Amino acid sequence: LVNREVVRLITPGTLSEDNLLSARAANWLAAVARLKGETGLAWLDMSTGEFAVQALAPGPAALAAALARLAPGEVLLPEALTQDPALFETLAPWRDRLTPLPDSRFDAANARRRLEQVFGVATLEGFGAFSPPGVAAAGTLLDYLELTQKGRLPRLQPPRPVAAGAILEIDAATRRNLELSATLSGARAGSLLAAIDRTVTGPGARQLAAWLAAPLTDPEAITERAASVELLTRLGDTRDALRQRLRRVPDLLRALSRLSLERGGPRDLAAIAAGLAEVPDLKADLLGAGLLGTGRGAGALSGGERLPAALARALAELGEHGPLVERLGRALVPEPPLMARDGGFIAAGYHQDLDELRTLASESKRLIAALQAEYVAETGIQSLKIKQNNVLGYYIEVPTRHGEKLLAAGRARLEEGGAAAGTDFVHRQTTAQALRFTTVALSDLENRLRGAADKALALELTLLADLAGEVLARGEEIARAAGALAFLDVIAGLAEVAVDRGHVRPTVDASDAFLIEGGRHPVVEAALAEAGEAFVANDCDLTAEQRLWLLTGPNMAGKSTFLRQNALIAVLAQIGAFVPARAARIGVVDRLFSRVGASDDLAAGRSTFMVEMVETAAILNQAGPRALVILDEIGRGTATYDGLALAWATLEHLHDHNRCRTLFATHYHELTDLADKLKALTCRTMKVREWKGRVVFLHEVAPGTADRSYGIHVARLAGLPPAVLKRAETVLGELESRHRRHPDADLPLFAAHATARPAAAPPEPDPESDSGAAFDPGGRAALE
Amino acid sequence: LVNREVVRLITPGTLSEDNLLSARAANWLAAVARLKGETGLAWLDMSTGEFAVQALAPGPAALAAALARLAPGEVLLPEALTQDPALFETLAPWRDRLTPLPDSRFDAANARRRLEQVFGVATLEGFGAFSPPGVAAAGTLLDYLELTQKGRLPRLQPPRPVAAGAILEIDAATRRNLELSATLSGARAGSLLAAIDRTVTGPGARQLAAWLAAPLTDPEAITERAASVELLTRLGDTRDALRQRLRRVPDLLRALSRLSLERGGPRDLAAIAAGLAEVPDLKADLLGAGLLGTGRGAGALSGGERLPAALARALAELGEHGPLVERLGRALVPEPPLMARDGGFIAAGYHQDLDELRTLASESKRLIAALQAEYVAETGIQSLKIKQNNVLGYYIEVPTRHGEKLLAAGRARLEEGGAAAGTDFVHRQTTAQALRFTTVALSDLENRLRGAADKALALELTLLADLAGEVLARGEEIARAAGALAFLDVIAGLAEVAVDRGHVRPTVDASDAFLIEGGRHPVVEAALAEAGEAFVANDCDLTAEQRLWLLTGPNMAGKSTFLRQNALIAVLAQIGAFVPARAARIGVVDRLFSRVGASDDLAAGRSTFMVEMVETAAILNQAGPRALVILDEIGRGTATYDGLALAWATLEHLHDHNRCRTLFATHYHELTDLADKLKALTCRTMKVREWKGRVVFLHEVAPGTADRSYGIHVARLAGLPPAVLKRAETVLGELESRHRRHPDADLPLFAAHATARPAAAPPEPDPESDSGAAFDPGGRAALE
Repeated sequence: LVNREVVRLITPGTLSEDNLLSARAANWLAAVARLKGETGLAWLDMSTGEFAVQALAPGPAALAAALARLAPGEVLLPEALTQDPALFETLAPWRDRLTPLPDSRFDAANARRRLEQVFGVATLEGFGAFSPPGVAAAGTLLDYLELTQKGRLPRLQPPRPVAAGAILEIDAATRRNLELSATLSGARAGSLLAAIDRTVTGPGARQLAAWLAAPLTDPEAITERAASVELLTRLGDTRDALRQRLRRVPDLLRALSRLSLERGGPRDLAAIAAGLAEVPDLKADLLGAGLLGTGRGAGALSGGERLPAALARALAELGEHGPLVERLGRALVPEPPLMARDGGFIAAGYHQDLDELRTLASESKRLIAALQAEYVAETGIQSLKIKQNNVLGYYIEVPTRHGEKLLAAGRARLEEGGAAAGTDFVHRQTTAQALRFTTVALSDLENRLRGAADKALALELTLLADLAGEVLARGEEIARAAGALAFLDVIAGLAEVAVDRGHVRPTVDASDAFLIEGGRHPVVEAALAEAGEAFVANDCDLTAEQRLWLLTGPNMAGKSTFLRQNALIAVLAQIGAFVPARAARIGVVDRLFSRVGASDDLAAGRSTFMVEMVETAAILNQAGPRALVILDEIGRGTATYDGLALAWATLEHLHDHNRCRTLFATHYHELTDLADKLKALTCRTMKVREWKGRVVFLHEVAPGTADRSYGIHVARLAGLPPAVLKRAETVLGELESRHRRHPDADLPLFAAHATARPAAAPPEPDPESDSGAAFDPGGRAALE
Repeated sequence: LVNREVVRLITPGTLSEDNLLSARAANWLAAVARLKGETGLAWLDMSTGEFAVQALAPGPAALAAALARLAPGEVLLPEALTQDPALFETLAPWRDRLTPLPDSRFDAANARRRLEQVFGVATLEGFGAFSPPGVAAAGTLLDYLELTQKGRLPRLQPPRPVAAGAILEIDAATRRNLELSATLSGARAGSLLAAIDRTVTGPGARQLAAWLAAPLTDPEAITERAASVELLTRLGDTRDALRQRLRRVPDLLRALSRLSLERGGPRDLAAIAAGLAEVPDLKADLLGAGLLGTGRGAGALSGGERLPAALARALAELGEHGPLVERLGRALVPEPPLMARDGGFIAAGYHQDLDELRTLASESKRLIAALQAEYVAETGIQSLKIKQNNVLGYYIEVPTRHGEKLLAAGRARLEEGGAAAGTDFVHRQTTAQALRFTTVALSDLENRLRGAADKALALELTLLADLAGEVLARGEEIARAAGALAFLDVIAGLAEVAVDRGHVRPTVDASDAFLIEGGRHPVVEAALAEAGEAFVANDCDLTAEQRLWLLTGPNMAGKSTFLRQNALIAVLAQIGAFVPARAARIGVVDRLFSRVGASDDLAAGRSTFMVEMVETAAILNQAGPRALVILDEIGRGTATYDGLALAWATLEHLHDHNRCRTLFATHYHELTDLADKLKALTCRTMKVREWKGRVVFLHEVAPGTADRSYGIHVARLAGLPPAVLKRAETVLGELESRHRRHPDADLPLFAAHATARPAAAPPEPDPESDSGAAFDPGGRAALE
């Protein structure tokens, strides 16, 4: 029996095998630490070496948002945090992925020393500013890797600090409901990510997913990306050539990580060679397009235009890898086998000893063939053959009748006491048609052959280790090149989708604008296009004096689509992508909220209505003047008056206190009367045309309010039995005629608004005169 | 370079590798065929050999339900069907898993011949009755396996016909919304399956999942299962012993399938040996409990009680496997390596030649040690060692200063022209501290050693193939035993959960009863129990004169939970499980419908309201008198009057036309007045107590109607800002006071109901007098 040593612990966050990982998704191992009330988060992907650290705002919401953003495969955290009731709901969705560790493992001082040691620096400051809990979390990740990998650390990039406020915050519910990277049912297809992903490499796909998960808030950083994308939209041929080349680039970082963990094989070396081999031509293609050079390129860049810094940086980071590529190209056969132990991956001519061993092996094969000829001549048996199988090795086979003669001759010689060298055929096996023999000479040749093959394999393994060492010595340069290739893949992909779908470059600035002309929903538009239908574009302007749009209109007329498309446009704009619109100007959004769609969560004791109210509470409590909020049908799922009262109060609060840019869709047509009272609220409705008794939804957003919801019309489209529809119409007619007889019975609340408001205002000294002033001019002025 | 042959095509539905498959879920490959307007479905799991065929009812709904039930990994279908617009929506969720094949592949006559040939029968009738499209689908599956496996067919069980109407039909939306085998977010945890799954083997888990996906409709078959479960609830010790043994039983079917595809390894043989080895003790344990014997066991079975046939059948199918177990036990080492090519899996003493080769190898090692002693003596160098590495193989190592002497001596002898045998040390390598040599004698020994090891491995591989052949020859018996073990695992697990959670055995019969006393929601109850809270049980009686319950009450008071728990109880009862209730009697349900929860599907162009209406239409169009329907808040998501009118008409239609057992929850308190008009409708409400201004939800279902919905109360629980809540209360107070001033303005529809109804009735000759009579007494009498 073989003693098997434990060589590693496999956990969900520490996978490096290609067949266990998705090529197009990162597999984050995250750690959360809390020290003196501050929370830090660190995450890394062992399969690529990416590594980042973030200080989180206090409170569970920031942690929940960060985890939703990363969707880690495994989360390390101190045992104490798993007991914290305030974090119970935050951690619940990740329950299966939590790995609690003793609190003592999360120590900032030890972690800092460990990080400095691993990255060979005297201080971490060179990498940026890190909070103590962030450092503790990062150190815990290192410890955990060493533990699971039994002391072997994969190649890691230095930790990258993610600054507070640098990322557009999107809470978990909004991320889910907007279907940013997966649909509600968990599929990638149908998500925004799937709609805009034209990347052609795994690393590019992962990079794009990371961008989409964390849109930026710094207009300058956004502009750098968008400018890079724009340049590639203008250079169609260059883009095509670039993408064609990128298709041939394998996943360098994952190959590198496997090599660093000594789990790499010949194909990982080949992957690195193949990827780096594309770099010079790729640069040449781009040079041809006038991108490179002095920084003021000719050709594509118009006079005075600067090469976008992000693009210039990527081009610089591609680096030079000629000698390594040459060496690997010389060392490896064109299509090496997957497993090193199969041998045959080192090319002929690369190593003299190996060539000699291989010659020896083939020489032995030649000698064996000669031996067969010799035996045929000696015995006169023309049908004598030297063959080989797994059990006997090499053997001499002759048909039975000849074999018997040989056997008899052998016995005779034995009786004579003689044993002439070279001719004594030793019997090994009798089969139905033949007898099998061996001889000392054959056995010797076989041993030589086998010995040479074994030694050749051992030598190949040594050479493999040498080559891997050389690659790892250049690990940083290769990782930088891989990052640059991923960046180029992302921007080329974004440029491709922009050209393909007619997206435009938005202006993103520090204003309070939200001005979309002819906006479309990228996913719905694509689905309609597949069915050969056109999408109706709509404008949206939430700037200042009309920052709150109250949207009414029938079902299925496109309200939800309109709400979401504007949120998605903001997200796209802030990752640096083009947006599906005719034109767009967006003052940077710092938080995105939604209350759209919902399902109940009975096991957590929440009805649909409760889920809706929880999401609404999050918005009312957290949205500031730079937020973008979309709210769809607040107040469904409870009695009519309850729901209306809550929607009413929510709308007022958003207008007076949160003062954020808001799209508010409702079926409570009664709310539209609030337009007279709330200055920054304007009413919009989905246009409908009735024609010969049929209802046509025009999917156009227009000023005004709806008078009907056409629910029965939608029910007819859905296939309700005609008898039911007819009866519903009768009931509705009756309801409406009674309503007309008592018009004032409905919603006479405007007097109430004026009188009840002071009492409802928050406990401020003088709400009447103060609350407006406290929020508006100061806040907005400071931001502009 | 090695030429690599294509040995198989890997497709999602044709996986057999353990690391690519979930142990606890089946991986179905399905095929759909349509011939002369009839549709057939066949499915198999290549990793286990399970194989079934079903004729489907006409129309896309049956296909959609069947696909949702199976959730196949891959679906084969004729190209023509992918073009059929009627199937567009049915196939849409499976788009990524469809493999269209030429229509000509789906041929019933060829398929029948192919099936007869593969299963070695003259006619398929021995396996049951199959429709031509079912046979065509099954034959296509075989063709596809042969294609992808390059001619190798895995071991398959004969196709099992699934009769029409034998399965409780559950449409895809209901299956999803009730979270039967996965939650809405796709997780297993939180589903009904996870709550009741106490199986301890992969095959048991798959079997339970299959049962839950396809509850039965035949009361007798259900009773057989339930009786088996009941017996094991009574025999605690036996159940524990049984489950303890089952834990040691590996996945026999998957091991068998890999062996049949020549992809098996030593561990697959070991798995089969280990699993079958448990059979005799397992039988003895059960015999000890008095289950076995004449069919009228002593002990556990009370006098005159028959052993449930399902259990008796399973016990018989366990079979006898002594000789095979003994043979495998003798042949294999206790913990064989995963890969055959590592060798070392055949036990010592099993095969003489192998033992000899191994002895030869260890003898050579001993001789090498002796050679070292000899060289030490000969050279006088005490530090001389024989060592081994991968590059040089065996070599003689001496410290540098001794080595130089040996070299010099060799050169001297060479100059003298002499070469005494055995002592000429050939120099191989110089290292920093030592010189390395070889000799002819050492080289010979090494060759002997390596030759013996290689031949031993070849022989082991031959023996492995022999053993695999023996196992496959008994494939049917082993598959039957595996099935029986899975059955025992499922019923023991169901008995375990029943005892643990206090579930009871329901009565399932052909009546129209639906009588649940003290019912609970199994998943919510478990979640509450974890938090240390009690679940409030509730009765439900939908029998005959009160078959339609109209449920009102505030949000978060438990309406949705109550609706769902009753649907889940019906599902559990019809798979043969115990149910979370004090007592239950259920007249068999043939179709289960729900309209609960929903989210929009914008890419498909459907708002939430549209999705709700589509589901409602399915119910109104399809539910018959044996159906069970739960409806939660019909009419949300459109204007108030629209929604109310639709809910109103839906309720009437369910009562007058569908006449099914129905739970209907609503916030339209106005609907409760319909109780006076609709004979079989009764009102229930969730009890609430107001106490010192606080609201306490009692989660009790009581007769009566609610007067308030407490939406603002829920909003407070959800954390809406106090100012918003206060304002909402003010608005609500105003609304309600206006309402009191105009009470008749609200819903004066009862006159309308009487007058409008004739017009709304379906086009029958005399709806007034006829529609009631046509549905009720005849239908119900026929069923009892």
